[in-house]
Amino acid sequence: MKGRQAGWGSAVLDRFQNPTQVLATGFGSVILLGTLLLRLPIATTSGESADWVAALFTATSAVCVTGLAIVDTGGHWSAFGEGVIAGLVQVGGFGIMILATLFTMIVSNRMGLRARLMAQAQTSTLTVVDARRVVRNVIVFSLVSEAVVAVILTGRLMIGYGESFGTALYHGVFHAISAFNNAGFSLWPDSLTRFVSDPWICLTISGAVIVGGLGVPVIFELLRSWRRPSRWTVLTRVTVVVTTLLLSVGTMVFLMTEWRNPGTLGALKDSDKLLASFFTAVMPRSSGFNTIDVSQMESSSWLVTDILMFVGAGSAGTGGGIKVTTLGLLAFVIWAEIRGEPQVNIGHRRLTESAQRQAVAICMLGVALVAIATYVLLIMTPHSLDQVLFEAVSAFSTTGLSTGITPDVPPAGHLMLVVLMFIGRIGPLTLGSALALKERIRRYELPEERVIVG
Amino acid sequence: MKGRQAGWGSAVLDRFQNPTQVLATGFGSVILLGTLLLRLPIATTSGESADWVAALFTATSAVCVTGLAIVDTGGHWSAFGEGVIAGLVQVGGFGIMILATLFTMIVSNRMGLRARLMAQAQTSTLTVVDARRVVRNVIVFSLVSEAVVAVILTGRLMIGYGESFGTALYHGVFHAISAFNNAGFSLWPDSLTRFVSDPWICLTISGAVIVGGLGVPVIFELLRSWRRPSRWTVLTRVTVVVTTLLLSVGTMVFLMTEWRNPGTLGALKDSDKLLASFFTAVMPRSSGFNTIDVSQMESSSWLVTDILMFVGAGSAGTGGGIKVTTLGLLAFVIWAEIRGEPQVNIGHRRLTESAQRQAVAICMLGVALVAIATYVLLIMTPHSLDQVLFEAVSAFSTTGLSTGITPDVPPAGHLMLVVLMFIGRIGPLTLGSALALKERIRRYELPEERVIVG
Ligand SMILES: [K+]
Ligand SMILES: [K+]
Repeated sequence: MKGRQAGWGSAVLDRFQNPTQVLATGFGSVILLGTLLLRLPIATTSGESADWVAALFTATSAVCVTGLAIVDTGGHWSAFGEGVIAGLVQVGGFGIMILATLFTMIVSNRMGLRARLMAQAQTSTLTVVDARRVVRNVIVFSLVSEAVVAVILTGRLMIGYGESFGTALYHGVFHAISAFNNAGFSLWPDSLTRFVSDPWICLTISGAVIVGGLGVPVIFELLRSWRRPSRWTVLTRVTVVVTTLLLSVGTMVFLMTEWRNPGTLGALKDSDKLLASFFTAVMPRSSGFNTIDVSQMESSSWLVTDILMFVGAGSAGTGGGIKVTTLGLLAFVIWAEIRGEPQVNIGHRRLTESAQRQAVAICMLGVALVAIATYVLLIMTPHSLDQVLFEAVSAFSTTGLSTGITPDVPPAGHLMLVVLMFIGRIGPLTLGSALALKERIRRYELPEERVIVG
Repeated sequence: MKGRQAGWGSAVLDRFQNPTQVLATGFGSVILLGTLLLRLPIATTSGESADWVAALFTATSAVCVTGLAIVDTGGHWSAFGEGVIAGLVQVGGFGIMILATLFTMIVSNRMGLRARLMAQAQTSTLTVVDARRVVRNVIVFSLVSEAVVAVILTGRLMIGYGESFGTALYHGVFHAISAFNNAGFSLWPDSLTRFVSDPWICLTISGAVIVGGLGVPVIFELLRSWRRPSRWTVLTRVTVVVTTLLLSVGTMVFLMTEWRNPGTLGALKDSDKLLASFFTAVMPRSSGFNTIDVSQMESSSWLVTDILMFVGAGSAGTGGGIKVTTLGLLAFVIWAEIRGEPQVNIGHRRLTESAQRQAVAICMLGVALVAIATYVLLIMTPHSLDQVLFEAVSAFSTTGLSTGITPDVPPAGHLMLVVLMFIGRIGPLTLGSALALKERIRRYELPEERVIVG
């Protein structure tokens, strides 16, 4: 397999034998650079240097495409500062998409000769790609998607809202980058609330978020063989099914729960309620824009949002969370166990024990991390569990929705959120790929012991 | 193996091929009987029939040894009613201990010839037991333990609190049954708050709760070979280690978090704070007594209590939750995955893939159940997530601690809690045993596919 990768691509792939290092140093360096840039006096509207915590928090939030903010993005930062933020989001988005896509390729390749010989048709789709092509594909695909979104947004802002071409273009490009990369930064202090009834804006943004969240390998496979779902890889199959399920359930739940809530859907015309519910169901996974006031949502809706955020988006996309694949695999594991199947099969493929354990590890460590962060925030702030759990899940899953407590958190809490955003961004991918790439040599087998659980 | 079981024992063991049915019908019938008895006019102090929901809720709570109450146990029920409750607790406790112990034996036996031949010493300890001996051992052990506890409590209540012999004996026996079976019903409306500084009462109750929660197989193995931990089975090893860990961490966390809280530890002498913290750390697993006011605890302490309750006690004991073994196995699975081990080994034993999947299934389905119940309670009641999550976890894990909202929940919510207590009681054991007992025939193997997760 290595023989196929020429020169530069091969060197890159070699480095990936230690993906944790690549991810941590890569994202860490860009965050540092971003912090320094945002510390420049020209980055703020006031012309004074932003304080360290605000600069670090904003840079981390941008590079990790989280979108949490402790200062108002449009008000606090100058056009230069906003440009830096958009740049950091784009670099962070490219970074995560390229690395995730490469890891997907490598893991699929590693599946190796045996599986390919046994099932040529199904697996060959992902094996003839080299690193350079991946990088090019990701960048071209991202830029084209963002351009399409920017054009629609710009046009709509000019026609529907009377913005000048310059302003509309600036808003359009910024929000296109922010949406496709699942960042959720908005130049309006109330996010996209003013567009709650505007299907042009809402559906365009939703589309960008969903496409960015699915990820290049899935999108390309869908483009190639959307008519023949039976040929899809397990990755695509699980991603599409779980995503559809979460979007539908989320939309219905928000519609029912918030229908009469005067602070959210209650104020809207019935015809707009569906649009707003759909938008609210798309955003936790994991873009973080909002058109209804999150702080006014029922606390049962917060709980549902917590779950949607924690799950997040697709494995090779720009979204965060433990990923829909992880949830999907766990569901198959549980289903197989309930039915007493000796193996876990998805479609006509057997799931490796290693993949099962990875899914468990990612999910459980995610839960543990969120629980610890929630505990710390409960101690640090006067807010209730509803709000701090929401905040912690939002930071971990790089979603960036907030019930409004982010600015109130003390500096030590902001630094903890910085760490949480960072780990939430690189953690699941690191675990998923590092573990999958590690060689497993079965030296000897110990006698087994059956243990009763539960 | 079947050959060893004579007549009656063999018939019982045969029934266990379908443990779900045994558990559901067994517990269901006793709950129905209990409901009818509690509906009798003589069961209440007022002499009027209790309403159906109160009778059903109390009977379920007693049989499932949960201890949640919608009416004040000491005030609402007559001596006859309290006797019925104690009887239901005892039957529920016997039931769960006997069934869990039998399942443990069967699962260990199923480990089968191969493992026994390979490792005679370690596994023979649990194979020479038949069903009758298990039943006898469990009953004798329970009654002896309860007698010891009752004697200490009775003596202390007479000497330290001037109760008459009759009253002290009544209180002592009731609370001994309630403690050993992890039920947590108390005849005092504020549970054991009055004894917060009394080590005699607190440590005796704690001891009964811990011993009952460990379960007969573990206790017997500890009695047999407590000097040689290297010979312990995986069950005993994991149970002891995780229990110790949770108790220590819980004690420290409560001590730190509540130290200055005037509603809880703040009011106590420093020397009593340790005792109260230890007691508070023991009770979520899963007895449900309290000596400090749960409703006054910090919400960060509630979160920690939620986690302790959810995990619960030992697999073959009277406690609830997903069980310490489940948590322990998951930790080993994650650790093995992080280290890139091809298998999961605990001590010198390999964990079967089936056991790994069972642990995942029990934990995840538990999380899903609690999440759904929490969501429903959020919609039904005006309470915050802190409180309804606590209530849902408490019901699921048969703990019975409450922040005080149980009586406020509307009747539909009470019925949901009844279902939750029932599933929480029989669910994990059903899953753990039914899955372990099912024959797994590997007919053919599909080609594997590697999927990236996270
Ligand atoms: K985001
Ligand atoms: K209990």
